Amino acid sequence: MMKYQLLLDRVHEIQDLRKAVRVLTWDREVNMPLGGELDRTNQITTLKRLCHSLYTSDEMGELIENAAEELNGAHYASSEASLIRFLRRDYKQAKMLPDEFIARSASVNGRATAAWKEARRKDDFSSFSPWIRKVVELAREKAELIGYTEEPYDALLDRYEPGAKTSNLRILFEAAKNDLIHLYRAVRQRRTALDDRFLHQRYDVAKQRSFSRYIAAAIGYDFERGHLATAIHPFSTSLSRNDVRITTRYNPDFLSSSIFATLHEAGHALYVQNVHPSLTRTPLALESSAGLDESQSRLIENIVGRSHGFWKTHFQVLQKYFPMQLADIDAEQFYRAVNKVQPSLIRVEADELTYNMHIILRFELEQALINRTLSVNDIPHAWNEKMKKFLGVVPSDNRQGCLQDIHWTLVGFGYFPTYALGNLYAAQIFEAACENDPEILRELEEGQTRRLLEWLRLNIHQHGRKFTAEEIIKQATGQPLNHKAFVRYVTAKFAKVYDL
Amino acid sequence: MMKYQLLLDRVHEIQDLRKAVRVLTWDREVNMPLGGELDRTNQITTLKRLCHSLYTSDEMGELIENAAEELNGAHYASSEASLIRFLRRDYKQAKMLPDEFIARSASVNGRATAAWKEARRKDDFSSFSPWIRKVVELAREKAELIGYTEEPYDALLDRYEPGAKTSNLRILFEAAKNDLIHLYRAVRQRRTALDDRFLHQRYDVAKQRSFSRYIAAAIGYDFERGHLATAIHPFSTSLSRNDVRITTRYNPDFLSSSIFATLHEAGHALYVQNVHPSLTRTPLALESSAGLDESQSRLIENIVGRSHGFWKTHFQVLQKYFPMQLADIDAEQFYRAVNKVQPSLIRVEADELTYNMHIILRFELEQALINRTLSVNDIPHAWNEKMKKFLGVVPSDNRQGCLQDIHWTLVGFGYFPTYALGNLYAAQIFEAACENDPEILRELEEGQTRRLLEWLRLNIHQHGRKFTAEEIIKQATGQPLNHKAFVRYVTAKFAKVYDL
Repeated sequence: MMKYQLLLDRVHEIQDLRKAVRVLTWDREVNMPLGGELDRTNQITTLKRLCHSLYTSDEMGELIENAAEELNGAHYASSEASLIRFLRRDYKQAKMLPDEFIARSASVNGRATAAWKEARRKDDFSSFSPWIRKVVELAREKAELIGYTEEPYDALLDRYEPGAKTSNLRILFEAAKNDLIHLYRAVRQRRTALDDRFLHQRYDVAKQRSFSRYIAAAIGYDFERGHLATAIHPFSTSLSRNDVRITTRYNPDFLSSSIFATLHEAGHALYVQNVHPSLTRTPLALESSAGLDESQSRLIENIVGRSHGFWKTHFQVLQKYFPMQLADIDAEQFYRAVNKVQPSLIRVEADELTYNMHIILRFELEQALINRTLSVNDIPHAWNEKMKKFLGVVPSDNRQGCLQDIHWTLVGFGYFPTYALGNLYAAQIFEAACENDPEILRELEEGQTRRLLEWLRLNIHQHGRKFTAEEIIKQATGQPLNHKAFVRYVTAKFAKVYDL
Repeated sequence: MMKYQLLLDRVHEIQDLRKAVRVLTWDREVNMPLGGELDRTNQITTLKRLCHSLYTSDEMGELIENAAEELNGAHYASSEASLIRFLRRDYKQAKMLPDEFIARSASVNGRATAAWKEARRKDDFSSFSPWIRKVVELAREKAELIGYTEEPYDALLDRYEPGAKTSNLRILFEAAKNDLIHLYRAVRQRRTALDDRFLHQRYDVAKQRSFSRYIAAAIGYDFERGHLATAIHPFSTSLSRNDVRITTRYNPDFLSSSIFATLHEAGHALYVQNVHPSLTRTPLALESSAGLDESQSRLIENIVGRSHGFWKTHFQVLQKYFPMQLADIDAEQFYRAVNKVQPSLIRVEADELTYNMHIILRFELEQALINRTLSVNDIPHAWNEKMKKFLGVVPSDNRQGCLQDIHWTLVGFGYFPTYALGNLYAAQIFEAACENDPEILRELEEGQTRRLLEWLRLNIHQHGRKFTAEEIIKQATGQPLNHKAFVRYVTAKFAKVYDL
């Protein structure tokens, strides 16, 4: 396979450069002194430009097609055929965005982010609206450049969730929304005031750090191929398949922050740590889609990390770290406290039941903006109306409303829905895993994740990007993505937490 | 200056890549989990290959010559003329080493390092000697490829100390050696047993870390453009002019380790932090030579950091960190203890007086090996003979002798002498600085380095690589490098420490 090897050599080279960008980015968030900002931006820009120019060269196209010809007839599920499939699709898309567009987008994003920070500080939506208009225009232009069959939003979504269709998501989310609002109202009517005040005490940061290491290792995160650091906005990143790092943040006055950020990021990291070794140093050694990636973090953070069985085992360890603060608390109280449902104005502070509503709201607004059925000036009003309808609360200012997220300046349209997809995937995957291997539940009741991880490794993780999320979910669960498992999961859970 | 700008664009691009390699290397030493080793090696190799291929392309040669033509007549001391001078020389040398040779060297170095580790573990010189033979052959081949006018060793030296001549170093080192042996014997005859046992107690690592930050800031290291981390083998590296990092190590049972490693590395870092901002993102934003770089670390570590005045001020802070361990000690005792002279078999543990003898020994052996007047098998014998002659001690095994350093496998021949050059430069620079501005000494008596740093910035640091070390030293001190200031410095110092 000489031609495939030539392709692979180039793929390795590009992948090494991309990983170098990740090292530089991780370091910027974790270690870099303030003074290094400008030089680091230059370094990252140069490396990205080199990557892009190597990747979108005509030579790359020839390498792919030559290898494809040589491999004609290779098994669909083989690494070789999967890599060719992935590259053909990804290369074509990368070529569709001209350098000029990428540079223009980067420039708008940079300035829009600065404007957003300032607007948020002053609670001044009107100073941000010209920028959001530009971002919407860029998104429309991008959709036209990439192309679509049904509607423009598909093209935006596709970059994060390859193959997903907006029309399908609309149906899914609409169904989920109705069920969730119904359940949410039932919880609210119970008027049970869960006491979570004990989470808001002084918790020594060094001890929190130590417990974060403990809990990450407990759920199976491999520290010999990982590293836990601190960052203002926690994230996970793979510097290679064998060096998948997580970050968390420590709030000295709120215990949940570090625990659930650590579990969330470790969930992401497990995915790449368990990709099949043969995919190392290729773009296939990553999560299949943003939604499937999010499913693994939400599965570990919520389905495992906020479960009854999990804390039955691990609460006693936590209690040893904080004997004073948790003296009068038991595992049951802790379990309920970390599952408290309350309508939050802020997405990142939302509980498991209401989180998806925050996402669906954004998904609806993004479509309306792209389809020109909503004008930028009307965003605050539309936002507040939806908050009222979905959660019964209305932000008193735009900082607590439509100015809260950075996504519309930086990541772009089409990303938000993958958060909700993550929750749906997670529940569907977990249900299938437990049906497949009932021992998983028994183990989880003892705080163990060995069998669950093994199932996830075999059915999800190991494939990396060999298949689309759609293919993986069908193969792993026997059916296409739907919202029912998630609704079943939250219904059962909150019935238990709130004695419904 | 259109052609110069074209050159500069390319220089920036290459420099960004080189700095990315440094980020990847720093991270490997400081944060990377064990599992990341192979992938990281691939990433670094790919980036280095890209750098090398961009730098040694014919296009680069044309960019340099076109810019040189455009700039014809520019002032010698201008950044533009200096960059052209530097690039012409460096580009020519880089072109002289073919890719095949670089790959072969890297392969031999890698395997020789593994063999060295094993040989050192087993104290088995004979298993290492075939490798050292290969390394000597590579060094000879390299010298022939690069070329020289007087002797092959010049070519090796030149990579680290541009323009230096072996014949000149021989004269300098011979003179220094005789004076140092004389002084060393006088100290030994005093038979004063300085008590430094209090340095060998249990010292809490967290407190050592905190004191390291204090002491680095105290001598002027800028933490807003720097970062202090932990590494097994302390080093300093500039990830850009505005992000110059230091590492140190903490020995819980020996206080000096962290203090002097921190001061040493901060000394290196000050050099690059104070390079003129206009040189940012070019290869001129680095130390002029390895020797001059070492002079700044030795100046801060020894001339400042082991001085009487320095500890008169800072000892009281140290004492607050360790009130128990240092209860009965005063600044004077501390000053003497950290200046204790004792013949060490190990270079890295040697004091200021004997350190250069370790280097001169290696310098003499390297020349003899390159000139074929010493065979590899005779290294242990020659080593031990010289140790006996210079310091009056003989290693009981080769681990304590000729197997102690990694340099002959990794860095290559020609590097060791720059350590001794560093000491000579440092003393000569310090003497000139104090003559120029007598306030420097007064300030140092109060533990302050502001005026000293300002003098160093103006006369050494800001130039970066605009001039050769020879040019800088002549301009800064009014005379070429000589050994006299160093001999005067150690004579005065140890007369005081040992009441000679």
